[in-house]
Amino acid sequence: MDVHNGTMSRPSNREKILEEGLKVVHERGFASSSVRDIVSAAGVPLGSFSNHFTSKDAFGLEIVDRYFAHIRGLIQGTLRNDAKSPLARLAEYIARGKLKQDCDSGAQGCLLGNFTAETGASNAMRQRLAEIFTELTNAITYCLEAAVKEGEVAGDLDCHEIAGFIVSSLQGAMLLCKAERSVAPIERLEHVLFSIILRPQQVPVSLKDA
Amino acid sequence: MDVHNGTMSRPSNREKILEEGLKVVHERGFASSSVRDIVSAAGVPLGSFSNHFTSKDAFGLEIVDRYFAHIRGLIQGTLRNDAKSPLARLAEYIARGKLKQDCDSGAQGCLLGNFTAETGASNAMRQRLAEIFTELTNAITYCLEAAVKEGEVAGDLDCHEIAGFIVSSLQGAMLLCKAERSVAPIERLEHVLFSIILRPQQVPVSLKDA
Repeated sequence: MDVHNGTMSRPSNREKILEEGLKVVHERGFASSSVRDIVSAAGVPLGSFSNHFTSKDAFGLEIVDRYFAHIRGLIQGTLRNDAKSPLARLAEYIARGKLKQDCDSGAQGCLLGNFTAETGASNAMRQRLAEIFTELTNAITYCLEAAVKEGEVAGDLDCHEIAGFIVSSLQGAMLLCKAERSVAPIERLEHVLFSIILRPQQVPVSLKDA
Repeated sequence: MDVHNGTMSRPSNREKILEEGLKVVHERGFASSSVRDIVSAAGVPLGSFSNHFTSKDAFGLEIVDRYFAHIRGLIQGTLRNDAKSPLARLAEYIARGKLKQDCDSGAQGCLLGNFTAETGASNAMRQRLAEIFTELTNAITYCLEAAVKEGEVAGDLDCHEIAGFIVSSLQGAMLLCKAERSVAPIERLEHVLFSIILRPQQVPVSLKDA
């Protein structure tokens, strides 16, 4: 086992700590995961942690950024992917999230929501999470504005408000998935969202009958 | 200080542990609150905890029930209060929750959501939380069915589905309040809920113009 304690950057141990540490924290929660648990999962010596991270909070911020980097990739492929129809992109974004929750029947939930709920989270973490939720809201706003332009939804839709509502409702649905051990809450969200809130503009029945 | 360690039930210490312990857990999270933190806040000797609770998890279940007892009172006064108009009851239920979050700019969030997010929660706790969310969903379903009967909303509303959606979306909004340190997410929920999802039945514009 490598017990080198030098000050040189050692990407491989740092990488192992981030990769395995993220899994540990996602499974057990941040407060419930000790530095010892994290290095043990990573298979690196305890001292390695403090070589690479100034504190557990600093490590927490890095795994949140790492987790969000995956979501950012998903955003580019769906919400901000101009090659596809806007509502189909939003539907795909939510469906991909559902698929991820379905892997473990929603047991672990969303790491962002878990961190937000952990009331002991540092102020720096809270601010980072708020920034991430804003970035998500902006991506959904972008997608909804495209849906308005293409006539998929009503022109008077308040895209930014609905986007914020979708971000928080999706967080709530993933939270309820954890309690119910099922993705049914996300399926309810999809149905209410696409059949009521974003239902296609329709010709009124009275006109069709005329 | 009372250092009696007998096996007799001692309601006053038990009561202090539950009352002050709930505050500690709501502020810091369950995993981050040690038994020592809890008895210290309650001002009772450490041994008193094990006199009254078989485990920290057993204590956790009791504070969740205690917290939900308040919500159950709110449900009786609003959602299940047949003396008031149904949508006004639902609006009051949400507004009361918002007022509670507003006391600390949403910093502590909802204890039920916090416990759900703490992935380390025991299976007994998870099941209890799922039961509570079902009880909440049933109360909102009751209220929405009354709204349908009184013609406040469309007759084809899927009351149970919308109720489940409201429960999870409200949890998500309270979660986002914690990140944003503001009740804006609950205000967005109120607006989308009452202006779009549950908007009053309207005469189509085409008929009004005729």
